[in-house]
Parts: sequence; C-alpha cells; structure tokens
Amino acid sequence: MQPTHIEHLGIAVAKLDDVIPFYEKLLGQKCYAIEEVADQKVKTAFFRIGQTKIELLEPTAEDSPIAKFLEKNPRGGVHHVAYEVENAAEALKDAEAMGIQLIDKTPRKGAEGLNIGFLHPKSTCGVLIELCENPNK
Amino acid sequence: MQPTHIEHLGIAVAKLDDVIPFYEKLLGQKCYAIEEVADQKVKTAFFRIGQTKIELLEPTAEDSPIAKFLEKNPRGGVHHVAYEVENAAEALKDAEAMGIQLIDKTPRKGAEGLNIGFLHPKSTCGVLIELCENPNK
Repeated sequence: MQPTHIEHLGIAVAKLDDVIPFYEKLLGQKCYAIEEVADQKVKTAFFRIGQTKIELLEPTAEDSPIAKFLEKNPRGGVHHVAYEVENAAEALKDAEAMGIQLIDKTPRKGAEGLNIGFLHPKSTCGVLIELCENPNK
Repeated sequence: MQPTHIEHLGIAVAKLDDVIPFYEKLLGQKCYAIEEVADQKVKTAFFRIGQTKIELLEPTAEDSPIAKFLEKNPRGGVHHVAYEVENAAEALKDAEAMGIQLIDKTPRKGAEGLNIGFLHPKSTCGVLIELCENPNK
C-alpha cells in the first residue's frame, strides 16, 4: 500500500459558482480546471496547494453521491480524502488483505485520468477514503 | 495570506485506541506522538503523510468541540482542514480584510507548538478552516 501523500480532498458543495470565489481568495489563485465526471455524477473545480489538490464537487444528478452527502450536510463539507499510491490495483488488494471493505474491487477512471478506488467508510473509521494512482507519472 | 500546503487534517474520533490501528495499517507507519491539547479539550494522535499530518482528535470533555461534532457525526469524520501560512497573525488579518469571519482574532497555541487561528465555517462554505504557522521553521 504505502501512500505517499494526500493527492486531493474532495469537498462537497451545492453550487461551484458560489464556492469557487472563496477558495480563490483563500488560496490566492484561480481555479485551474473544471471537469465533469459523468461516472460519479459530479462537476469538479480544481485548485493546487502544495502536494494536494482541492476538488470542489457539485452534484449533477439527484442520485449523485454528493447530492446524498449534501442532504445530510446542507452547508457542504469534506466528502472524501484521497491518498496517492504507486499502483491502485495492488493497493486495493492490499487493503482487502488487511480486512478493509472495498467499494471498488478494481480501479476505475476518476477525474484527471487517475486510476481510483474507494474504500468503504464502514471500515475506515468514518472518513470516506480514495486510493489513487497517477498513470502519467 | 498565501498558504503553502495542507499542514494537517483534523479527524474527529470517539476513541483514539479504536482508530489508531486503522491509520497505522493504511499509512504503513506507527503513530509518532500523542498529545493532549487542554485548550481545545482534545487528545491528539499524529501521523505524517507527505507534507501533511493526520491528527486524530478524541474529545476529553463533554463540551469539547469534537464531542459536539461527534454528536452530529457519530462515526467521526474530517473536523477541520489546516493550511500552513508563513505568519498566522498576518494571515488572520488578511482573511478578515477579505470579509471572512474569524473565530480567533489573533493566533493562539495549538498542538506541536504551532501558532493557529480558526476561520468561522459560516464564511468558509461549510468546512472549518485553520490557519497555522510553524514558529520553528
């Protein structure tokens, strides 16, 4: 497994347009990309801060996981924490061998072309955790 | 302002002893310190992952902010995101000048001797944000 750093924080927001200006002020930079990830039913806005990206996530459908999160947390909040690993497929196998329940048995494509997989929050002490691999490195 | 990186994630947990083993597995390392921060009524366990620390926070009193968070989120979760800045006092002034509401008008001492100040989540789009300065750098 051995993650190297926090690749990104996924932050749920109701409307990107309402939140992007705050992060532009806080981080002293412009949002560098906006991308729709159809698979996860979200539209994402990206910032870089050191080794980590801030990914603001707006739901694009009522059954989006982000829409469900916002029902419970209407003001938004940190939806998931993503750790970078060298090989996502192996890291998911390692996690399963450690007794961690998986949402994704094998990696799928996430934003920015990363290979990603989620661990189940029931076995990660309340925080939704993503493992991701940058295949372009 | 201009934060450089995410200094730590504060993660609320009911019992450190129940959660430390999970992070030791996930991050492939031992917790390197446990510290009580009387001011914030928490006991904290630390891990390092790249530029960022994971700080697990267990409440030490019923009126701890972490106890209140756990009432709403019994399984735990990300309580706050801390950004490192060069000068916490100046960063808090900058934030106020930008129209961000402050919890701390001036820095106070946090875990590991950092100078810290919190921004009010009402003006930070739902995520509790801490600014912190490492005076030993």
